Amino acid sequence: MKKLPIGIFDSGLGGLTVQREIALALPYEDTIYLGDTAHVPYGTKSVQTVTRYSKRIAEFLSEKGIKLLVVACNTASAYALDELRKTLDIPVIGVIDPGAQMAVASTKTMRVGVIGTEGTVRSGAYFDAIKAHNVKVSVFFKACPLFVPLAEEGMLDNKIAALTASHYLGYFKEHPVDTVVLGCTHYPLLKEAITKALGRNVTLIDSAEATAIEVRELLSKEELLRTEVEKEGDSDRIGSHKFYVTDSPERFIQVGRHFLGDTLAEAELVDLGG
Amino acid sequence: MKKLPIGIFDSGLGGLTVQREIALALPYEDTIYLGDTAHVPYGTKSVQTVTRYSKRIAEFLSEKGIKLLVVACNTASAYALDELRKTLDIPVIGVIDPGAQMAVASTKTMRVGVIGTEGTVRSGAYFDAIKAHNVKVSVFFKACPLFVPLAEEGMLDNKIAALTASHYLGYFKEHPVDTVVLGCTHYPLLKEAITKALGRNVTLIDSAEATAIEVRELLSKEELLRTEVEKEGDSDRIGSHKFYVTDSPERFIQVGRHFLGDTLAEAELVDLGG
Repeated sequence: MKKLPIGIFDSGLGGLTVQREIALALPYEDTIYLGDTAHVPYGTKSVQTVTRYSKRIAEFLSEKGIKLLVVACNTASAYALDELRKTLDIPVIGVIDPGAQMAVASTKTMRVGVIGTEGTVRSGAYFDAIKAHNVKVSVFFKACPLFVPLAEEGMLDNKIAALTASHYLGYFKEHPVDTVVLGCTHYPLLKEAITKALGRNVTLIDSAEATAIEVRELLSKEELLRTEVEKEGDSDRIGSHKFYVTDSPERFIQVGRHFLGDTLAEAELVDLGG
Repeated sequence: MKKLPIGIFDSGLGGLTVQREIALALPYEDTIYLGDTAHVPYGTKSVQTVTRYSKRIAEFLSEKGIKLLVVACNTASAYALDELRKTLDIPVIGVIDPGAQMAVASTKTMRVGVIGTEGTVRSGAYFDAIKAHNVKVSVFFKACPLFVPLAEEGMLDNKIAALTASHYLGYFKEHPVDTVVLGCTHYPLLKEAITKALGRNVTLIDSAEATAIEVRELLSKEELLRTEVEKEGDSDRIGSHKFYVTDSPERFIQVGRHFLGDTLAEAELVDLGG
């Protein structure tokens, strides 16, 4: 069981920020990543549709054999996490609760902002998760639909990114917060532009980092964590990483390099139907 | 046969610009529109995937009974038109050839620009179509991936739209053209911003208008056109319009109002599988 990889999925590329943090935090773990590029994006789609896609992917990854499933997509975490937990007999971690927990730990003014896709914002999942950790924290939401295409275009810190960030994040001038959760896995790529728009006094919570920490804690608690000590006969062994996509790998690899650099050399096309 | 509606499909909302032009040009025709909102966008997806989606939709609309199919999506027209023509026994019109033909008729400098999604630009379909009408016309392409999310956000003529238009269309300063084809059905919504970036001397070709003209000509030639004269016993009869979507109708109706105004009141959810 311990030797099985960690399964990770996202609607497309965004979850690569989570994959990267997991690989950094847990260098001896293998990972299998699926990007549902035939259906990307999830952020504007309905609960029913996103849940259907998520279940099919979870099934695919389970059949490959994984010890833990990470839902590295905020929209899928918001919509499908409970359903996936019901269906699977391995632990399932989403990106929302770790980010919510870290935000609650960070805020001093008890006022937290959450930015994400339309779906994530509308779902109220961050509201529930933050309130579950501390009911006294007030939560302010802003959907930023242009951030994903900006990140995928590689427009990370130009004038268009700056203007778009000011446009959306101006909301937090009227609703001041001291902590903002990057509630979409693409957003860490736009950290610079977001920081400039919000000001240096606002702490950004990167759900990818928070999720990697949660994954480490859970594996450790369940005694499923692979460590250097165990090396398993192979003294130079570090984790290996496999990538699957549901649409042509070409664009995934090309744009994925904004996220992972040249380590993303290969991705295999799978047909999950639909 | 003449009384059957015209079938129209698109990956999502963009094709509504085509539906609108058809309804304006042919007020006595009924239309059935399908927006494949469970899979939107097509512009970044592969030939195989877009063709699979298109065939399934064509089948659905054919079963409803239509006299003509309009592929109101540039990417699907670029990728799947030949395949659909092979499969269906009714005429199939795409948006690329009408736009290409109108561009060739418009250009005086024999230099035409085409802007569209990554998929449309990469496909070379406009290049082939323009060259087929006049081999002497030079064609210059620029993909503008942020235009679709801008249009769907309703950011049609603000500073972000202006800056983004300048960013992409600066390309035509180095490669001057006198005519630019709006090679994506969303782009007519951004006409103002595009015109400002290109300058008033450049003629914009709206494929939606060009396609509506082509539809009228084809129906007329095939003696399938419904006209006022025929009124069919109902003296006030004008065309009725039905909308289907593959994901939740809510967002389609809400954002679709940027395209059609309040006439878009209803859309029915259908499950095409996948």
